Amino acid sequence: MSKDRLYLYDTTLRDGQQTQGVQFSTAEKLRIAQALDALGVDHIEGGWPGANPTDSLFFETVGQTRATMTAFGMTKRAGRSAENDDVLAAVLNAGTPAVCLVGKTHDFHVETALGITLEENLENIGASVAHLVAQGREALFDAEHFFDGWKANAPYALDCLKVAQQAGARWIVLCDTNGGTLPEEIGRIVRAVIAGGIPGDMLGIHCHNDTETAVAGSLAAVEAGVRQVQGTLNGLGERCGNANLTSLIPALLLKEPFASTLETGVSRERLKGLTRISRMLDDILNRVPVKQAPYVGTSAFAHKAGLHASAILKDPSTYEHIEPSVVGNARVIPMSNQAGQSNLRKRLAEAGLEVEKGNPALGRILERIKAREAEGYSYDTAQASFELLARDELGLLPEFFEVKRYRVTVERRKNKYNRTVSLSEAVVVVKVDGEKKLSVSESMDDEGCDRGPVNALARALAKDLGRYQSAIDDMRLIDFKVRITQGGTEAVTRVIIDSADGQGRRWSTVGVSANIVDASFEALLDAVRWKLVRDEAA
Amino acid sequence: MSKDRLYLYDTTLRDGQQTQGVQFSTAEKLRIAQALDALGVDHIEGGWPGANPTDSLFFETVGQTRATMTAFGMTKRAGRSAENDDVLAAVLNAGTPAVCLVGKTHDFHVETALGITLEENLENIGASVAHLVAQGREALFDAEHFFDGWKANAPYALDCLKVAQQAGARWIVLCDTNGGTLPEEIGRIVRAVIAGGIPGDMLGIHCHNDTETAVAGSLAAVEAGVRQVQGTLNGLGERCGNANLTSLIPALLLKEPFASTLETGVSRERLKGLTRISRMLDDILNRVPVKQAPYVGTSAFAHKAGLHASAILKDPSTYEHIEPSVVGNARVIPMSNQAGQSNLRKRLAEAGLEVEKGNPALGRILERIKAREAEGYSYDTAQASFELLARDELGLLPEFFEVKRYRVTVERRKNKYNRTVSLSEAVVVVKVDGEKKLSVSESMDDEGCDRGPVNALARALAKDLGRYQSAIDDMRLIDFKVRITQGGTEAVTRVIIDSADGQGRRWSTVGVSANIVDASFEALLDAVRWKLVRDEAA
Repeated sequence: MSKDRLYLYDTTLRDGQQTQGVQFSTAEKLRIAQALDALGVDHIEGGWPGANPTDSLFFETVGQTRATMTAFGMTKRAGRSAENDDVLAAVLNAGTPAVCLVGKTHDFHVETALGITLEENLENIGASVAHLVAQGREALFDAEHFFDGWKANAPYALDCLKVAQQAGARWIVLCDTNGGTLPEEIGRIVRAVIAGGIPGDMLGIHCHNDTETAVAGSLAAVEAGVRQVQGTLNGLGERCGNANLTSLIPALLLKEPFASTLETGVSRERLKGLTRISRMLDDILNRVPVKQAPYVGTSAFAHKAGLHASAILKDPSTYEHIEPSVVGNARVIPMSNQAGQSNLRKRLAEAGLEVEKGNPALGRILERIKAREAEGYSYDTAQASFELLARDELGLLPEFFEVKRYRVTVERRKNKYNRTVSLSEAVVVVKVDGEKKLSVSESMDDEGCDRGPVNALARALAKDLGRYQSAIDDMRLIDFKVRITQGGTEAVTRVIIDSADGQGRRWSTVGVSANIVDASFEALLDAVRWKLVRDEAA
Repeated sequence: MSKDRLYLYDTTLRDGQQTQGVQFSTAEKLRIAQALDALGVDHIEGGWPGANPTDSLFFETVGQTRATMTAFGMTKRAGRSAENDDVLAAVLNAGTPAVCLVGKTHDFHVETALGITLEENLENIGASVAHLVAQGREALFDAEHFFDGWKANAPYALDCLKVAQQAGARWIVLCDTNGGTLPEEIGRIVRAVIAGGIPGDMLGIHCHNDTETAVAGSLAAVEAGVRQVQGTLNGLGERCGNANLTSLIPALLLKEPFASTLETGVSRERLKGLTRISRMLDDILNRVPVKQAPYVGTSAFAHKAGLHASAILKDPSTYEHIEPSVVGNARVIPMSNQAGQSNLRKRLAEAGLEVEKGNPALGRILERIKAREAEGYSYDTAQASFELLARDELGLLPEFFEVKRYRVTVERRKNKYNRTVSLSEAVVVVKVDGEKKLSVSESMDDEGCDRGPVNALARALAKDLGRYQSAIDDMRLIDFKVRITQGGTEAVTRVIIDSADGQGRRWSTVGVSANIVDASFEALLDAVRWKLVRDEAA
């Protein structure tokens, strides 16, 4: 049986940015776009050019992608032509092959929110879509509040879609903007729209999770015939978020009736990268990944109940709906590290450490990682700290130097001009080649600004490491993330530091302590030691 | 039209406890049971007596509840009578009016996991249920893996249910134990079961969230005819959690076709307590509440996009599927670059500050917010800091006290036992009512652990604030987030602190500085000042 093509449209960079507290930088947007492109989505909605300088810069710099890069905007305003609408012009100026314009389809919104006539709104939709088509762009029409609009005035809501269809829209996207429509009703309305004359292969679905049914609502629309699904990674988005592509993609690829009747741009091979992409996004956002997240969460295949865990050992399918590796995730069974060892060897090999099967150090490394994770450490991203821990257990970590003690002072007071000033000062005492070295540094930068206690500590630590000094001179701290996490019974601070050097290397290290400065110092120390391993290893 | 009764069965205390990292104490179980009882659920499944000492103690102490207290266990083992099964006897000994027993219905599990014949399993189910009935208990049969069992061998799965029915079970609960069945299929199988002879008014549904569709699957089963829904508060549960009652209850009460055809034990009045109960559970678990949680999250009715926010001001129903107060939640219109004066006035009104249109302070507040956002501040979540800034500009912020200076020392060294120890010490100098007060505090907690410099500072700051002291005694820091952000041309640290007090208030404040300790101190100061505004305002 030949399969129908189902298209995946990602709006993490646009609607996902509406999440409270989320504001991507251009560099972050580029990194996310690259990951989406590698995953195999069909459209990447990059933002609203003109409305937001970060978005405009993103479109300027993103370059060629396999996915169709799409700019978002709104239909022209009433009382002017599409050609003369400056907001629309700014969207087109981004030069993307596809453009998605949101417009009203709910009579109440047309009259109340926009304050224009129903006729004017139809003209705005038709003329805007026609303008996109005339410019040679793939045109998408986002039918805002479509389901509420249908319930209030179905003939008018359908007219809005037809105007877009007649103007040449490639896709008409049915949006449940307020997220209040339940799946069964979404399916029913989609069927009515198709019966009303808009074929399913030009319909998309855009759900929000306000009733915790955005994934099910999207699936109901696909079953009813739509052939484009919109969503975001990790379900980012305004209020309760958008439909979660991280859950939708595996359902579409692995579950019936979708798996055997539909085809997407995501291959089974690429699906294995799903867990990694989900966690990368959390890293960028400095969020703690949701443990219970379907498919990709660290608890998604964790078996706690004694009865379940013992059945799992007989046959994993007894308490798992899919095999975790299919989405790049892993099973967690208390007291079993059988699966752990081969994963570990793979990870060590990635760090250049070939360890033969059955080496007893493997078990010890797993035990130490487990114990440290219980304390609040995380080695998902802190690959350099992971490598140091493994090297230590394998006897492959020289003790380059020893830190005897340190002390940092942070002070804020009024200066003689009665202005508040702050200053930090750090003293670090290390022993290198049997020689004790005291270094002191303050936190003032060249412009006279206080860069804080971690900066002072980093500088004091890097000031005199004897014969290792030259190796660390080109190191610099490029990012610093702090999270409160649960270590044992107490909340502790986890610091992740990203470092870089003159050879273009980047590495991440982790430190954990209830004391934020001490956690930072631990991560700094690991950063220095990893750099020495790389440069001094011989 | 008379409404059908739909029963709500809560298993937070039993299945919810299977969540990774969750282990309730008896006292916590009692507190949760009380809240569930007040909410109006019909059954409270309290645990598995005999399997867990905490559960046994809970049943001994819980006393009278309006909801039917229910003990959980499993059907008797093969080769012995129900009367002689010690595991079953322990369950009955809890003396609850209802007992729910889980049993197999999937032929593969009977033969592979249990290793008994299909006939023996039927006998176990029938004899166990009959035993409950003979003891005068309300009998519930949890049909484990029912949907997978039906797909593998429908006649046998149905036989299992019929044996329970004939033995006198009041409820037969269809469990999607592995969480892999999508809603449409759940609805279809439920209809087939009813057609097969088990009436809907003795059927229950028990879903898991492994495909992110547990809420939708439960609703599909209700539409198909089941009259009991099982779930947990906040969707707690093994792996990805159980069906989330916190989302299901509002859907059943507020959404069609449920609202006008079904009646539950939760009144519209009690529904207003939903948000509070959800957050109370997070408090007990010491978890940060999920902001994006449908209905009850702090972001569930937060409007960020400029276009949305201005429409909300005209009519809240433009971007809200329900009125937030119906579930005890509140609307949030965060400040952002795009927010205009009308948004601002709305935000101020929410903070209890009525400012007339055209007040020149409005423009000044917007300017200050814009300038601060350029420095790296963010007021999306830090509403308390926003309020303080506005109050300052409006002349409504008393200068409760002045911080003259502070100094913190962080030290790490070897102690006399050659163990590395760290310690922080803070001195804060404030002026209250013209009097200078020096306070010093160290970072050691009751167990002798170093809690770090921010803790030491917070304690020193809160040690002696003169006549304000009593107001801040019940404050505690509950979350602490740090991000590196681009403020002007330099990377700076943004700290967001969440605080709570004894009256159940929660508020967020922000501090920005290149110096992480100084940024934290600023956020701490705002937290204290906001608390004083709330408690001392007169």
